[in-house]
Amino acid sequence: MVIEKQSKNQNDVVEKIVSLAKRRGFVFQSSEIYGGLNGCWDYGPLGVELLKNVKEEWWKFMTYREDVEGLDASILMHPRVWQASGHVENFTDPMVDCKQCKARFRVDVLGDMLNEKKKQKALEALQQKIKDDETLKNTYQSISSASEDLFLGLLENSEMSKLLLDEINCPQCGNKNTFTSARQFNLMFKTFIGPVEDAGAVVYLRPETAQGIFVNFLNVQSASRQKLPFGIAQIGKAFRNEINTKNFLFRTREFEQMEMQFFVKPSEDKKWYDYWKQQRLEWFYSLGMTKEKLRYHDHPKNKLAHYAKEATDIEYEFPFGWGEIEGIHNRTNFDLSRHEEYSGKSLKYFDEESKEKFVPYIIETSAGASRSFMAFFVDAYYEEEVNGETRSVLKFHPRLAPIKAAIFPLVNKDGMPEIARKIEQDLRRSIKVFYDDKGAVGRRYRRQDEAGTPFCITVDTQTLTDQTVTVRERDSMEQVRVSSDKILSYLLDKLNSF
Amino acid sequence: MVIEKQSKNQNDVVEKIVSLAKRRGFVFQSSEIYGGLNGCWDYGPLGVELLKNVKEEWWKFMTYREDVEGLDASILMHPRVWQASGHVENFTDPMVDCKQCKARFRVDVLGDMLNEKKKQKALEALQQKIKDDETLKNTYQSISSASEDLFLGLLENSEMSKLLLDEINCPQCGNKNTFTSARQFNLMFKTFIGPVEDAGAVVYLRPETAQGIFVNFLNVQSASRQKLPFGIAQIGKAFRNEINTKNFLFRTREFEQMEMQFFVKPSEDKKWYDYWKQQRLEWFYSLGMTKEKLRYHDHPKNKLAHYAKEATDIEYEFPFGWGEIEGIHNRTNFDLSRHEEYSGKSLKYFDEESKEKFVPYIIETSAGASRSFMAFFVDAYYEEEVNGETRSVLKFHPRLAPIKAAIFPLVNKDGMPEIARKIEQDLRRSIKVFYDDKGAVGRRYRRQDEAGTPFCITVDTQTLTDQTVTVRERDSMEQVRVSSDKILSYLLDKLNSF
Repeated sequence: MVIEKQSKNQNDVVEKIVSLAKRRGFVFQSSEIYGGLNGCWDYGPLGVELLKNVKEEWWKFMTYREDVEGLDASILMHPRVWQASGHVENFTDPMVDCKQCKARFRVDVLGDMLNEKKKQKALEALQQKIKDDETLKNTYQSISSASEDLFLGLLENSEMSKLLLDEINCPQCGNKNTFTSARQFNLMFKTFIGPVEDAGAVVYLRPETAQGIFVNFLNVQSASRQKLPFGIAQIGKAFRNEINTKNFLFRTREFEQMEMQFFVKPSEDKKWYDYWKQQRLEWFYSLGMTKEKLRYHDHPKNKLAHYAKEATDIEYEFPFGWGEIEGIHNRTNFDLSRHEEYSGKSLKYFDEESKEKFVPYIIETSAGASRSFMAFFVDAYYEEEVNGETRSVLKFHPRLAPIKAAIFPLVNKDGMPEIARKIEQDLRRSIKVFYDDKGAVGRRYRRQDEAGTPFCITVDTQTLTDQTVTVRERDSMEQVRVSSDKILSYLLDKLNSF
Repeated sequence: MVIEKQSKNQNDVVEKIVSLAKRRGFVFQSSEIYGGLNGCWDYGPLGVELLKNVKEEWWKFMTYREDVEGLDASILMHPRVWQASGHVENFTDPMVDCKQCKARFRVDVLGDMLNEKKKQKALEALQQKIKDDETLKNTYQSISSASEDLFLGLLENSEMSKLLLDEINCPQCGNKNTFTSARQFNLMFKTFIGPVEDAGAVVYLRPETAQGIFVNFLNVQSASRQKLPFGIAQIGKAFRNEINTKNFLFRTREFEQMEMQFFVKPSEDKKWYDYWKQQRLEWFYSLGMTKEKLRYHDHPKNKLAHYAKEATDIEYEFPFGWGEIEGIHNRTNFDLSRHEEYSGKSLKYFDEESKEKFVPYIIETSAGASRSFMAFFVDAYYEEEVNGETRSVLKFHPRLAPIKAAIFPLVNKDGMPEIARKIEQDLRRSIKVFYDDKGAVGRRYRRQDEAGTPFCITVDTQTLTDQTVTVRERDSMEQVRVSSDKILSYLLDKLNSF
C-alpha cells in the first residue's frame, strides 16, 4: 500500500510527507525559525544520508565506467556562458504589473487565479472587441471557450494580451484596465561580482549544471585522453528564481542536479540516445523504485526545446500526479556550436580514424537529485497492520537507507550493553549504524522501520551463552541468528547482494 | 623533496602546480574559454575524485560517531539570518573611489600598492598636518615610520584616513586629492528572490555554512533525540565577493567548507575545545599530511573575533607561506543567543539531569574543503631521480587517491588484454580503476605516478601460466605477485590498512 492510496486529498498526502520528513529529520524548511525561505529546504540527519546515497549510487553507476569522466564546475560562471546558452534571452516567464496597487503577477498565474466564469466573461469581451475591429476580425474569429490553453496562449501573444488584460480585474486591488503589458522576467538569479554593482559586473547563479560541462569539453577530453564516444558527469546545485514553488521538493528555487553529457559522432546519436534512455530507467529500477510508477514521456516533435532533436522525460507518479524526475535529450551540436560562436574558441573534436574535425553531438541525461530524493522517499513509504497496530515503514533499498543497521541490547544489564557496544564500534568504521537502548524492543524496531533501517541487531540472553545475535530484516520482519563476530561480513554481503 | 624546495620563486611554484593541475585534469579555470571568471575554479576528472575523497573522509571521521549528526542546509537563507550573525553589519572591507578616473580600491590594497618611499612621504605630510592642527596634535604625535600596520590603521581610522588619502596619488590615474572617504563594502554576494528587485527581496549567498547549522539546532536535536554534548556537521559551498583572489584555490570567491558545530554545556567548553583541537590535527595526520608542515596558530586574546572566547588555526606551510586550512573556535553562546533575539524563538536546551534551561556553548571546527584539497595536493607532490630520469609523483594517501588501481596488459596480445579486462571489470564495481594498454609499461607507470594511483596491476606472460599478476606500489615501486582472483580483497585490505 503506497501513500497516495491512503488519501484522496493530494494536499493531505504532501502534508503528511512533509510532516514525517520534518519529525524524523529528513527535510526541514530553510530558515524555519525566521518563517522560512520559500522554495528552499534543508536536509536533516537522515535526509542528508539518503541524499548522499542517491548521489553516490548515481556517481558509481555513471562514472565507474571507462567512457565517462567526472567534473565539478563552479556555480558562478562567466556571464557570456548564459548568452551562448540562450538563457539570458529565453529563460523567461512573462509578467505583468498592476499600475494601481503595484502587485506583480506571472501571466500564467493570473490565468490560474481566475475562475471559469471570469475567464469566460473576459473572453466574451475580447470577442466583442475583435468583432468591432476589422483588422483583428480576420485572424481571431474562433475565440469562444475559456480553456486554460487558449487563455494562456492569448496572454502570451503580445497583440492579444493587452486587449485581454484590460478585461481582467486585478486579483489584489480589484481594479480594471490597470495592467501593464506583459514583460519577460528572467528566471536566473543574478548577482554582482567585484565591488561595483553595475551591468558589467552581473553574473548569474547557474540555472543548470550542463553548461559547466560544455565549456570544459576540451579540457576534460585532453586531460583524460578520451576518444568519442565519451561522457562527462556532474552533480551540483542549480538555482531558478521560480515565481511559484510547489509540491515540497518538486519545484524549488535551489535544487541539485545529476547531469551527464555524452559526446558522440553525429551519425551515432540515435544509438546512444536509445542506450541512455534505457540505462537511466534501469537505474531507478535497480534501486527498487516501483516499476508501475515510472514511465517515459516522449516529447512530440512539435514540442521539442530549441536545442533538441529528440527528448524524453522519465516520470514518477507522485501523490500530486506524474512528474518529471529526469530528462534524456539529444541536444545535437547546438551547445558546442554556440559556445564556439560566443567564445571564438574551437570546440571541435579531431577523429583520428576518419581524420575529420567536427563538433560532436551530445546526448544528455539530466536527473534531479532533489526530485529523485523525493521520489525514492515517497515510493518507500507504506503502512501496514501488524498485530492490530499500524507499522509505518520506509522500505528504502539497503544501499539508499540512511542507517544500515541498528544495534540493541535487549535489556540494559547482564553484560548485554557491553557486547552491543562492541558490535556497534566494529560496524561503525565501515557503515552508518545507530545504537538504541531505550524502551521496549518492539518500539525500537518501529522507530527504525520509520527511518528505513534495513537491519536491526539485538543482543539477548542467548548471546551470552552462544555469541549469536538476532538480525531482523525490515520488510519481512524475519529474524535469523548470526555469530556476533561475523556480523560485519554478513551485513556487507547483504548490502552488496541487492 | 617537496615542491617548495624546487624553486625560490613562489610564483613559479604556484604556476607549476596550476599547470600540473590543469594538464592532468585536477583543476581548470572556471569558464576558461571565455577568459575565465576570477576566483572560481572547476574540478576535473581527477580533481573531483580527490575532492570527493577528502569530503568523504571528513564526513566519516566527523559523523560516523554517536554524538554528531549530519546536515545539508540551503545556500540561500532568510536575510534576517545575516543580520543576526552580524554579517550584514560587519562582514565588510573599507573601499575608496578615485573621483577622477572612477577606479575603486580596497583600502588595504591601496596600502599594498605603494612602495615604502611613497608611504613614508605620505606619512610625513600627514605628520605635518597634525603639527599644524591643535586638536589633532595631542592624539597623533607619534606617527613616524611607514610600517604596514600603522599605515592600514590610519586608513581604517575615519578621522585620519581622509587626511592620509589626500597625500596619496591614485595608482591608476596618478592624480592627487582625488579619493572619496572610505566606505564599507560588504563581502556577501546578494541577489533578489521573487520577481521584484527591491530591498525587500534581497537575499545573500551564504558566506559560511555555519549559520545553517545554528538555525537548525533544535530541529536536529528534536529529530535525532540527541542530548548535550552533541554536534552537527555539514559540507557545502559558500561564497565571498573577495576583491583580491589569490594563490590558486586558497582565496577564491566560491569555495567549499566542512564545518561542525559541537553544542556543549557552558562549563564544559574548555574540555571540548581542547578535544576537537587535537582531533582535527590528528585527522590531517591520519591522511598522511607531512607533520612538519602543519601547526597550530593560537589567536591571542586581544585579536579574537567578536564571537570567540578562544580560537586556533590549523595552518599548512604552502609554497607561498603558512596559511589557515581550518579554524577551531569556542563561539560561546553568541550565535544561538543572537538567533533567539532576532527570530524571537527560544533556542534553549533543557537539561533533564539538572532541570535547567540554557543556551548551549558552541565549539566550532571549520575546515576549508577547497583549501584542504590544495594542501593535500601540494603536500603529495614530489620529484625524484630514478635511473637518470625524473619521476613526478603525487603520493596521495590511498584513501584520497582519485584512482585506486590501474590495470595494464603487458602487451596487447596473447590473451593478456582479456585477462586484464576481466580484472578491471571485477574491480570497477567496488573501486575507481583505470585501464591502460598504450605505450611501454614504464611510461604507463609514470602516468599513474603523476595521477597519484597507489597500485598498478600488470598482466604479463607469467599470468598466462600461473594466474598471478604483479602489483606495483607507487611510492616504493616494489612489485609483488598476487593471484588474479584475490586481487580485489588484496587491494581492499591495503586500502583499509592505512
